[in-house]
Parts: sequence; C-alpha cells; structure tokens
Amino acid sequence: MNPLSMPPRLLMGPGPITVDPRVLQAMSTQLVGQYDPTMTAAMNEVMELYRGVFRTANEQTFLVDGTSRAGIEAALVSLLEPGDRVLVPVFGRFGHLLVEIAQRCGAEVHTLHRSWGEVFDPAEIETALQQVQPKVLAIVQGDTSTTMCQPLAEIGALCRAHGVISYVDATASLGGNHFVTDDWGIDVVTAGLQKCLGGPSGSAPITLSPVAVAMINARKHIEAGIATDSDTPSGSRIASNYFDLAQIMDYWGPRRLNHHTEATSMLYAARECARLLLDEGLDAAVARHGLHGTAMLEGLRGLGLTPFGDPTHKMTNVAAVHIPDGVDGEKVRTALLDDFGIEIGMSFGPLAGKVWRVGTMAYNARKDAVLTTLAALEQVLRSEGATVTAGGGVGAAREVYA
Amino acid sequence: MNPLSMPPRLLMGPGPITVDPRVLQAMSTQLVGQYDPTMTAAMNEVMELYRGVFRTANEQTFLVDGTSRAGIEAALVSLLEPGDRVLVPVFGRFGHLLVEIAQRCGAEVHTLHRSWGEVFDPAEIETALQQVQPKVLAIVQGDTSTTMCQPLAEIGALCRAHGVISYVDATASLGGNHFVTDDWGIDVVTAGLQKCLGGPSGSAPITLSPVAVAMINARKHIEAGIATDSDTPSGSRIASNYFDLAQIMDYWGPRRLNHHTEATSMLYAARECARLLLDEGLDAAVARHGLHGTAMLEGLRGLGLTPFGDPTHKMTNVAAVHIPDGVDGEKVRTALLDDFGIEIGMSFGPLAGKVWRVGTMAYNARKDAVLTTLAALEQVLRSEGATVTAGGGVGAAREVYA
Repeated sequence: MNPLSMPPRLLMGPGPITVDPRVLQAMSTQLVGQYDPTMTAAMNEVMELYRGVFRTANEQTFLVDGTSRAGIEAALVSLLEPGDRVLVPVFGRFGHLLVEIAQRCGAEVHTLHRSWGEVFDPAEIETALQQVQPKVLAIVQGDTSTTMCQPLAEIGALCRAHGVISYVDATASLGGNHFVTDDWGIDVVTAGLQKCLGGPSGSAPITLSPVAVAMINARKHIEAGIATDSDTPSGSRIASNYFDLAQIMDYWGPRRLNHHTEATSMLYAARECARLLLDEGLDAAVARHGLHGTAMLEGLRGLGLTPFGDPTHKMTNVAAVHIPDGVDGEKVRTALLDDFGIEIGMSFGPLAGKVWRVGTMAYNARKDAVLTTLAALEQVLRSEGATVTAGGGVGAAREVYA
Repeated sequence: MNPLSMPPRLLMGPGPITVDPRVLQAMSTQLVGQYDPTMTAAMNEVMELYRGVFRTANEQTFLVDGTSRAGIEAALVSLLEPGDRVLVPVFGRFGHLLVEIAQRCGAEVHTLHRSWGEVFDPAEIETALQQVQPKVLAIVQGDTSTTMCQPLAEIGALCRAHGVISYVDATASLGGNHFVTDDWGIDVVTAGLQKCLGGPSGSAPITLSPVAVAMINARKHIEAGIATDSDTPSGSRIASNYFDLAQIMDYWGPRRLNHHTEATSMLYAARECARLLLDEGLDAAVARHGLHGTAMLEGLRGLGLTPFGDPTHKMTNVAAVHIPDGVDGEKVRTALLDDFGIEIGMSFGPLAGKVWRVGTMAYNARKDAVLTTLAALEQVLRSEGATVTAGGGVGAAREVYA
C-alpha cells in the first residue's frame, strides 16, 4: 500500500478544521518514556496551560485520552451513579448526546427542549432545577448542529444556589467564544482540540472543581495489580475503568499511579494548541473568531443566502445558512471540495439537507480563508443555478474588514 | 511557556518505545475532513491493513480512538451484558485489568490464577470453560508485567467447541510474537500502537469475528439526534456510548453514521505502523523481535543478571531480569536515563522493585540499540557496585548475532 498522501484542503466546515502547522510540528516530536521527568514535567505544563485556557484555578485540569466525547463520557460516568437525577437542556444534537450518555450511565435523565436555532433563558433552567432537583446539570455551550451558543454567565451560580453540580460541554466553543469557568462557577468543563483550539481530534481537555473532585474521589477503586494494601475502595465503583477520573487524577497527580499509557503525541498537540491560544490571548482569540465569523456571515448574506437561527446567540466560529430552494446542497458541497479543495458542512436531524454550516475556526479564522471560501462558493452557486450577485460575498466580507 | 523541546531518549523499556520516524512523518500530515472521500478511503485502507496485521478476513477490523485499554474496554463492554459470565485466566497485571474492566461491565467474573512468571496449560483452561460455561473467555497474550507470552494456538478452538466467545488482548505482543486470529479461531482481538507496532499510544486496533459482530449488533441503539425512524433499538443498550462498537462499526462501515470525530492524526499513525509491519512481513518482524530479544536476554545474562520467569514462554520483545541483591534498581534506572538517555522499566505488584524490564521492540529491535543498552548498563552496574564482567553483555549479544 502507498505512503500516506492526502490532498490539500481548506477545512471551513463545523470541524475538524485545518490543524495549525505549529501543532503538526509539535506532534512530530519523538517520544520520551511515560514517567520520564521530562514527560511528567510536560504533563504538569499541560495542566497549567489548560488552567489558562479554561480560566480556572482548578488543580484538576488535564487531558482525557480520546476524542471530545471521551471527555464528556468521563465527566458524566464519573459524576453520575445509577439512579442519580440529571437535567439536560437540549437545543441541538450534542444536547441529545449528553442525554444519551447520561442514560447509559443509568441516570434518571430529565430534559428541557428548545427548537433547533434557539437557546434557553436562564429563568427556564432555574425553574427546572427547582422542579427536578438534579444532582447534575449537563449542558452544551456551543452546539455546532445549530450554531447556537447558550449563554452560561448565570448558570453556574444558579446551580450552586440549588446545590447542583454543573457540567458544560465546551468542545465546539472554547477558544472562540467567551468562557470563564471560575467566574461563572461551572464545576466541570470538557473540550476537544479540533475546533477553536486548532488541533486534531483525539485529546479531550477537562477541568474539575474541588467539589466535583471530592464527589468523584469518594468513588475511588484503584485497580487490582497496582493497588496497595492502604488503597481501600470507597463508594460505588465508577462503571468505566477507562473513564474513571478518580484513577486518572492519580495518574496526573503526584502519586503518578499507572493507569493508561498517555497518548504522548496527542499531549504534545494539546500543549501546542494551548500555547497558541494563550500566546494570542484569550480575549484576542475570541475577538478574532468574532471578526472572521461576522465577515463570513455577512459574506454569505451578500451571496443572497439567509442565515439560520437566532442571530443574537450565534457562535462566533460557525455560521449556518439555508440551502436555497432548488439547489442541491450536497452537490454544492461536493463541487466546492472537488473543484476548490474547500470543505463546508451539512447538518443533522431536523436540519439534515436544509442548511450548510461554514466554520471560521482557529488557524482558519483568517481573512484569506474567509474571502477564498466566499469567492469559490459564489462560483459554485452560480454553476448550480442559484441567483448570486457577482462579488456580493467577498464585497460584504470586505466591508466587515474595512 | 516555551516551545516543546524533549531530550533524545532510547526507549528500551516495556513500552512506549521510540516511535519509528516514518510514523512521526505520517502524523505530521495535514488533516482532511471527516467524510472527505480521501478520509473514508484512508479508513478503508486502515481496515485492510489491519486485517493483514491481525491475519484475519474479518470485515470488522478498525480502530478505537484511545489508548490500548480503550480497545479492551470497547470489546468487553460491547460483548458483556450485566450478569454475563466471563472467564479470565490471570498471569500478570493485565489479566487483573481484564477482570477489573469486566467487573465494571457488571459481568460475573470467574478467574484462574498463575504465579507471575508462568503461563496456563490449555487443558487447565478447558476444564475451567467446562465448569464455568462463560459467555466470554478474556485473556492476555503477552503480559509485559511478567514478560510471559500465553500460548493461544488451541484456545480459540476450545472456546468454539464450548460455544464461548474468545477475546485476546494482544497489545504488548502483536507484531513481535506469532499471532494468527483466524487460524487460531479467536473472535475478538485488540491491540495498541506503542509496543511492537512502533507508534505512539492513542489508537487501538481491533478485529471482530462475524459471530462477535452479530452479538454486538443485537444490542444496537443508535443515538438520538442522528437515528432515523427505521433505526429500531434492540437488545440491552451497551453501557458506554464512546465504546459502543455497534455504532462505531456503522461509522467505519458503508453507512458512515456519525459517531465521534475520528482522531485523524492517530489514524495516520496507525496506517503507517501497519504499513511498516506488512512491508517487512509479519514472519520477518517476529523473527527480528526474536533475534534482538534473544541478543538482549543473552547480553543481560552475560552481565551476570538472572532472567525472571519461565524461559520457554518469554515474549520476544521484552526481558525481565532480577535486580541483584544490594543494588538499588531505581538508582540504576535513573543513572541509565540521566547519563546515557536510555530508558528501561521496573515492574508492578509482586514484582515491584524486584526486576528490571528491558524491551527490544519495533524501531528499537535493532542491533545498535541492543549493544548500546548493554554497554551503558555495564557501566552503570559497575558504578552501583554490582559485579560485572567487562564486555560480558555486549560480547554475549554479539555471539547471538554471529
């Protein structure tokens, strides 16, 4: 079989996106051993860097080895015991995913629902917290399936007032949308690298508040083969070994208890993603995503396309637009890829076949990426018989930049 | 924080080992989109390559996104329903891990035990199969904690004769020790990249027989948000979403149902690992591990060290030797790392502090790596007050090569 040879692509979909070249360079670094002092130092650096990314002082801030949903499942299976009540406000596909995972944990799952394209009012969530009295509230910040960004500024405080642990899936939003773990009082947050962090999928940063850590450590059962006589198991055993955050914290902590073999290349990637973001500055990165996201949205409008969803709660880093009547959405997507090497996305569930999703994230939240995408899309739309104003997309985007 | 800068290391422990430079090059390849035709083609190539590596015709041969224990947990949680009986013959730490994971799946776990340093006789396993009548037999091939390699040639057939599904964790052995999935009649096998496959930890190849696939698909529950009306759930829902092989098979299969976002860089790595192995030839790779493993073992003997465990069932790719009386094992390990940049390993549980483990795997199953390690170890042992014959290690290894 031939050596790997992939075509050049400009990934302007909802993620994964083109990886920042600095991250690819970091991943090409040779390995050191699992307990090499330089490796444990790198692990500690990663913890410190992600405290910066999550804007938290949480000691327990590290990586789960797997894709972003590995982080979600680790959080939920470690927090939830069978029969625990959990409240999930669902406003898109990834809310359904939280429901799904919590159900598989054996939790009693209560849901709130919003039409795709809308977000929740905090008052609505507070009422549900009072009624359901859950152990955990689990909610997505940015749901790429709808491109909506749920306001969270009041949610952590509401949860703390009601004695509820708050969990946020910030996979698609972190780094490109404002997020402050400690100021908002969020207990547990997970993410991935493949959206606004500019890396490949395969590592899931997580942060846990001291209260969440205590709850999880009350269920610690160290595995046979490495447990010592003083390791007395307590509480109900977490249903997964791989996602057992109590053990994973001992692996990342001073005890360095052997759990998995760290996915070192992915840790190198995660480290560089965080460095890129913190070097730029979190506020600057959010502003950059805002600028290029707005330019893309205005450009899409300038091509005669209609944005989907509540415009006041749109994520900065991805825009959804209705596929015009009479245009084959998949054909446009394929022509963009085949003729221009540019990828945009479709969507799921109630939006399947109805919208395109165009991302401007991390390395690709750039003027040239935005203008090139709009120029190419204009050509493809015209070929597919849509009515487009010549130069309308690029022109509108340029006005945003000017 | 500074750019990543790791020191050069020769990783001669039980794994992870120095990654083959071709794998690092593959990992530095830029991403394409998740459903790009070139990505799905690469996924299909990976399936075909790993059929070669596992020596199987199993259609369902793919990657689980995570470290090697992600593959183990995916296999067990997808096969085992709460209350199912599973038989685990334990001859080292990783047998305990299978017990641990199966227990967390809610299975009724029966065990057989061998002292560390020994393996099981197939007759012993057959007797237990008859007594326990398990749904699944789960066993490790090579347990690096003891360096023993369990003979498996008869195990698959015994399981099939008793209507038992066989699962083998071949993480530490695959590629360096003979393994033939179909000829031995093994139903499910998982592995990792960081041992004889020459890659980093973070991707877990798996293969499943049609019988195992049917058993798992009988429990398929497609997640809300992407399920269609014709997706009727059946059987008891698999307790993990992330490790739900029924859904993961639909992601790798023609339906391309969205599950996770594939860890593309790790897939690139896994692809190159398999190419390296198949280019060399499986038999040649096993022979190479045998040669360099023997040279290392004889070299260690030549230094006056005593091998641990049953010599007739030693893995090719890792040797354990007793730490001589009066020598501080950890001090030797640290001096080798600090003064020579060479890593060797200690062990766990009953062998903690008692043996060193020295690996010769994948890229590091090379003459220069073996001789350099022995030359350095001689110097360090002498410094630490052990009695060593000058040139005894390198000389004994050279005799094996001659």
